[in-house]
Amino acid sequence: MRALALNGTLKPSPDTSNTEALTNVVLDALRERSVECELIRLADLQIAPGVVSEAVRPGDQWPEIHAKALAADIVIFATPTWFGQPSSEIKRALERLDGMLSETDDDGVPEAYNKVAGFVVTGNEDGAHHCISQMAAAAYDIGFTVPGQAWTYWNKGPGPGEEEYLSSQDVEWTNTTARAAAQNLHTVARALAITPLTAPPS
Amino acid sequence: MRALALNGTLKPSPDTSNTEALTNVVLDALRERSVECELIRLADLQIAPGVVSEAVRPGDQWPEIHAKALAADIVIFATPTWFGQPSSEIKRALERLDGMLSETDDDGVPEAYNKVAGFVVTGNEDGAHHCISQMAAAAYDIGFTVPGQAWTYWNKGPGPGEEEYLSSQDVEWTNTTARAAAQNLHTVARALAITPLTAPPS
Amino acid sequence: MRALALNGTLKPSPDTSNTEALTNVVLDALRERSVECELIRLADLQIAPGVVSEAVRPGDQWPEIHAKALAADIVIFATPTWFGQPSSEIKRALERLDGMLSETDDDGVPEAYNKVAGFVVTGNEDGAHHCISQMAAAAYDIGFTVPGQAWTYWNKGPGPGEEEYLSSQDVEWTNTTARAAAQNLHTVARALAITPLTAPPS
Amino acid sequence: MRALALNGTLKPSPDTSNTEALTNVVLDALRERSVECELIRLADLQIAPGVVSEAVRPGDQWPEIHAKALAADIVIFATPTWFGQPSSEIKRALERLDGMLSETDDDGVPEAYNKVAGFVVTGNEDGAHHCISQMAAAAYDIGFTVPGQAWTYWNKGPGPGEEEYLSSQDVEWTNTTARAAAQNLHTVARALAITPLTAPPS
Repeated sequence: MRALALNGTLKPSPDTSNTEALTNVVLDALRERSVECELIRLADLQIAPGVVSEAVRPGDQWPEIHAKALAADIVIFATPTWFGQPSSEIKRALERLDGMLSETDDDGVPEAYNKVAGFVVTGNEDGAHHCISQMAAAAYDIGFTVPGQAWTYWNKGPGPGEEEYLSSQDVEWTNTTARAAAQNLHTVARALAITPLTAPPS
Repeated sequence: MRALALNGTLKPSPDTSNTEALTNVVLDALRERSVECELIRLADLQIAPGVVSEAVRPGDQWPEIHAKALAADIVIFATPTWFGQPSSEIKRALERLDGMLSETDDDGVPEAYNKVAGFVVTGNEDGAHHCISQMAAAAYDIGFTVPGQAWTYWNKGPGPGEEEYLSSQDVEWTNTTARAAAQNLHTVARALAITPLTAPPS
Repeated sequence: MRALALNGTLKPSPDTSNTEALTNVVLDALRERSVECELIRLADLQIAPGVVSEAVRPGDQWPEIHAKALAADIVIFATPTWFGQPSSEIKRALERLDGMLSETDDDGVPEAYNKVAGFVVTGNEDGAHHCISQMAAAAYDIGFTVPGQAWTYWNKGPGPGEEEYLSSQDVEWTNTTARAAAQNLHTVARALAITPLTAPPS
Repeated sequence: MRALALNGTLKPSPDTSNTEALTNVVLDALRERSVECELIRLADLQIAPGVVSEAVRPGDQWPEIHAKALAADIVIFATPTWFGQPSSEIKRALERLDGMLSETDDDGVPEAYNKVAGFVVTGNEDGAHHCISQMAAAAYDIGFTVPGQAWTYWNKGPGPGEEEYLSSQDVEWTNTTARAAAQNLHTVARALAITPLTAPPS
């Protein structure tokens, strides 16, 4: 079983990403279940704006990510929080995944069916539930199944500020929730492998 | 297998509900798969505001709905659209379902795990995607799994107006999508019955 | 100048409402500017579901609130947070305000034009920005103007829990923001009194 | 008086942009009121991801837009609809505007205060209300005032499809609403010029 995590931080490597740190808690719990995991930081790649799977201009690196998404059973969408909303980086990736809507296997089953989606959010301010709802909405539109409680988040209390996941002592709930998310993603991915969704009725 | 549909129209019976009409397209497709279906119009009942499963005042009828939700494998949340948002009736039901968050079976599995949630929206104006995202967010928070493409909707084009699902000729996409939603809800409910989610790690 | 605050807590009086406590910080700052203020706890009244200003059944108390909203220059929408979303109580009030959409004065100016809307959110968990965005969206749809930074909120850090605004030591940012919201509401209400919106072009 | 419109289409020039066409209806109505208007297609520029006003890497063209936003009295945010959500292009611009949060004039008044924000959405599917709510939420967070009914949109009926604003016969409501938005933006911008917001209380 394979998992692909897309980190939508606005900061390219090697800057520290709190979102990446929390995503790795989920991925570590998946690795304990023998899931092969890969994490991509979107800001490190050249991804053109668009809504198709193919390259839309020279140098567009979306096709590499598209191939990895096709091969994955579990896709994790991770974002920082700005104005209580997901980042433009993760939005761009979701827009490109729109191309999957019309891609089916030889039996007419949409490519995203029988994949599951999970969600990770960090922020210095309120907004995690909404970020999850936005990423999830795109995911189940494309055909991903969203397992119950397949997300985790960290933020601080009211108002903006400097505090961050990596420097906080207050991460126990967040990390426990991350491990529960990993378990639920793994179980539902297995459930769909055993009892798969079929082509939609016409 | 059992399905429970909650219709959040603001209009009590016997007023015509477009939301109910479209919900019945999903339920009919579930019945073809031998699912036992029940539809409740929330505006016909006395449901007190609150976030617990027990009655919060004399005459509060939520406990009846709670019992039916516990017995269901598939729960469908249906709403009209006001200001592009779900109705206060379906919101009230989702708030009461919050009580399920802390309810587990004898093995410590949350009661909503291994149930799936689907969504139906009608409106005379734009807003269906957002209504779905709001209802879905509450559902997967409680522990319901949201299958890929487990929703349908109908609205008219730009601006408010009189046109409605029941009187429209333009319902083919909406009804086909409703039948696909039913198939996906049924398949994922079966998948979880065969390969169930277990208690979250502590 | 008059302000009306609608508190969408799910708890009837005399239960303590954190949302009410924070709303009063905004109202106190308005009173310092000689604004006459009234706060209504929606859960204390019988408000029928619907989208019109008139009573929809015997005992429906919406018309009283509608009259007060018509007389107000500033309307504050206040809600607790459930699943990161506004409560069914405040949603119901916003649905009823929909009736204002078609009400105009003798010059054809929609009744909500030249009124301003502000927002207050409390919660034991993340969701304030989204609650504000939902209430604001309904308000500017109806015709209210939303001044910059005309909101405040309080919640705790990650995960659900018991901590509440009234018992927290961490309220300085929240209360300062509340006073700024009051100032901005007051200034923009005055600006619109001096330079009012006129009837929309046909 | 000056207006700046930011078009968040994913398509670079010279591709046809429905969003641009509808935005121009608003701008034309502003020009009739002697407002000097400029429209920028974000996809034509190199805008680096980030949350500051200054260039974050060589070639980053955000500072040019930032300067124009500072000079504008009216800013219009325009987006196509993908999955019922605003585009990554307009999201990126809003993230960069976050830098304005900490910028004040010599009197301590935040730079966005006394500017107004309007919204334009086009789509081949449902989602306009939600797109408006997302862009507006960022705008009033930064300090822009959002006048009542300062938006317009166009989409088609249920389901995705090819139909677009420019090729539709069904644009009357959309264009009338666009002209009303222009009037409301202009009036509230004038109201704030005459009765401006002042520095927030500390």
